[in-house]
Amino acid sequence: MTETIAGAVSAVRERAPLVHCLTAAVSMNLVADGLLAAGGRPMMTETREEAPFVVRRADALLANLGTLSTDAMAGIPATAAVADELGTPWVLDPAAIGPSPLRVQLARDLLARGPSVVRANASEVLVLAGEGTGGRGADSSDTATDAHDAARRLAREHGCIVAVSGAVDLVTDGARAVAVHAGHPLLTRITGTGCLLGALTAACRAVTDPWTAAITATCWLGLAGERAAAVAPAPGSFRTALLDALFSLTGDEVAAVTIEELP
Amino acid sequence: MTETIAGAVSAVRERAPLVHCLTAAVSMNLVADGLLAAGGRPMMTETREEAPFVVRRADALLANLGTLSTDAMAGIPATAAVADELGTPWVLDPAAIGPSPLRVQLARDLLARGPSVVRANASEVLVLAGEGTGGRGADSSDTATDAHDAARRLAREHGCIVAVSGAVDLVTDGARAVAVHAGHPLLTRITGTGCLLGALTAACRAVTDPWTAAITATCWLGLAGERAAAVAPAPGSFRTALLDALFSLTGDEVAAVTIEELP
Amino acid sequence: MTETIAGAVSAVRERAPLVHCLTAAVSMNLVADGLLAAGGRPMMTETREEAPFVVRRADALLANLGTLSTDAMAGIPATAAVADELGTPWVLDPAAIGPSPLRVQLARDLLARGPSVVRANASEVLVLAGEGTGGRGADSSDTATDAHDAARRLAREHGCIVAVSGAVDLVTDGARAVAVHAGHPLLTRITGTGCLLGALTAACRAVTDPWTAAITATCWLGLAGERAAAVAPAPGSFRTALLDALFSLTGDEVAAVTIEELP
Repeated sequence: MTETIAGAVSAVRERAPLVHCLTAAVSMNLVADGLLAAGGRPMMTETREEAPFVVRRADALLANLGTLSTDAMAGIPATAAVADELGTPWVLDPAAIGPSPLRVQLARDLLARGPSVVRANASEVLVLAGEGTGGRGADSSDTATDAHDAARRLAREHGCIVAVSGAVDLVTDGARAVAVHAGHPLLTRITGTGCLLGALTAACRAVTDPWTAAITATCWLGLAGERAAAVAPAPGSFRTALLDALFSLTGDEVAAVTIEELP
Repeated sequence: MTETIAGAVSAVRERAPLVHCLTAAVSMNLVADGLLAAGGRPMMTETREEAPFVVRRADALLANLGTLSTDAMAGIPATAAVADELGTPWVLDPAAIGPSPLRVQLARDLLARGPSVVRANASEVLVLAGEGTGGRGADSSDTATDAHDAARRLAREHGCIVAVSGAVDLVTDGARAVAVHAGHPLLTRITGTGCLLGALTAACRAVTDPWTAAITATCWLGLAGERAAAVAPAPGSFRTALLDALFSLTGDEVAAVTIEELP
Repeated sequence: MTETIAGAVSAVRERAPLVHCLTAAVSMNLVADGLLAAGGRPMMTETREEAPFVVRRADALLANLGTLSTDAMAGIPATAAVADELGTPWVLDPAAIGPSPLRVQLARDLLARGPSVVRANASEVLVLAGEGTGGRGADSSDTATDAHDAARRLAREHGCIVAVSGAVDLVTDGARAVAVHAGHPLLTRITGTGCLLGALTAACRAVTDPWTAAITATCWLGLAGERAAAVAPAPGSFRTALLDALFSLTGDEVAAVTIEELP
């Protein structure tokens, strides 16, 4: 695994994949700056008129339900449809689906289309699987372990990778599952780190297989969070240091994160 | 007052109120990151389809007219109506109403609904009260003192707290009025600090009465601005330090800000 | 030239021009914070209902095609029309027009209206001129030199200044052309620096002629990038330092940037 992770990080930097990001207005800036810092290139158009067209140039797509404007509501399914048609890999982030039935339906429709990777917190995974109440707002009230069975089932049923973020992150393809031991609580004290993880997963997916991509992005962001917290113990300076760490970490450093195989 | 202010700061951190923020696109990120730094939890959905539904889970609502997208134009009144119906406290921020008659009408309609607190700069208060021309753009061309009488009158007529931001901040319930001596000119050199004050007021309102909430939020942000300016004399680093200070200030420090009772 | 550049920087700080910015959602925050740091004042409303009205108070307008929401698609041409009618100077930034035929048409319609300055990267200039394929996403795959002839021709045909951003920046009025030797590669590793350059050009245009404005803004942002990179070698801290430098640089420092007259 170590070599493929280091290789994926290097490949993102060498190939600078163009990632079309349909994401929350509130996290757009962190998503775009985080992608640029890591070595990818963001593109953010979300209307139905443009997004299905410009996605044709993208190397990967992030479909994050985020703040879900009227533009995004129409643009996201139309763009995911084109990505599917072209075989462009895409990541589904069913952000904050808990409080909104409308959003649950959209997320399930998208899941049925065939994303490579689903990136979500535990509460979102449980809602997507038809369990749980989805926490309050965009936060998780469950742990990744609580969502382990639901994540495996979703992965098997939809033939995708499911990556569950939390204090410990879980990545599964339905058969295998690993726990990634990286990250820091300050990652939950700034807006959009979950969205950024989805975008980084899409960037990695542009250069490698879904399983490696989900694990690489999870290690990369988690380790960047640890590095940032070591020099910046409050959220404002942490955000700055997080972007610096995404830029500065080497592939070998990312590959050295502890990945535990789960039974 | 000192104990209630310190208590409100602690309560925000302990209860982590979920604040539904309908706010300007340009300030969304500072609002969300500022709330998270202070200890609250933001939620930003603004469409008419979703916002009136998700507000049901919120502990407080911020209705900021901000950039006022087509989505927000429909979503804000519908969401405030649900907040009123449920008794969820909400804060009205009539941002940049000066140059836009459409916005003045919307702000007056919202004011008639019954916000707990109106948070605005002096020019906005004067326009809301039917006086003044509203300055240019989002800035105030009047001082809080100029708006003292208008603020008192609005507070009495609408049974709410009016908090007027400026070099010296004014908070009134129509009968009482205090001046808060905190803040720094650099707060006007980054985007969205007024919007963030509205959101912080909503977070405080979720845990205490409107009078204490408005004063606590005003002291908290003002003192954070002073702390930030002491270590960061230019706007980029000031923004970072401001978020750090919102996170680091103790309730006792916030409660030590000078509050002057006005005649 | 040196005196007029230093004078333009001072005039922005003294007069604090109100710049109405119609720009990409992803770059709104950097645009607004960058304008405030430099000394201007931003205003961001983009709907057709409000933008053509509030632009009446603005000293200059930026029309950036950016993420081009449904609101912006209707609001941008209507607002540019009012600016033309009032004689309010405006800057066209045909952002990311490469991948989108819809955007190319809108950019050409706007160009025909009569902006003072067109600010773009080389690929965007080539597409606007009916040459080239526009690179991928928002980045340029051409250099400013590649676009030299196309830029001169556009400037002559439309009676405007064309400013082409790149490793070396080019500014031309069709007859004269200069290369500005300032900038740093990290400017391409954070989102929105091109958009900010357009906004800064609009702020300068509010206080001086289009030729001086385009050159001043190009020198100011480029030198700020150099200063920032000298203290902050990774993108997160670079973004912070860039805003600090826009705030701190003196007019004389900006005027000392090397400007090479081209044949």
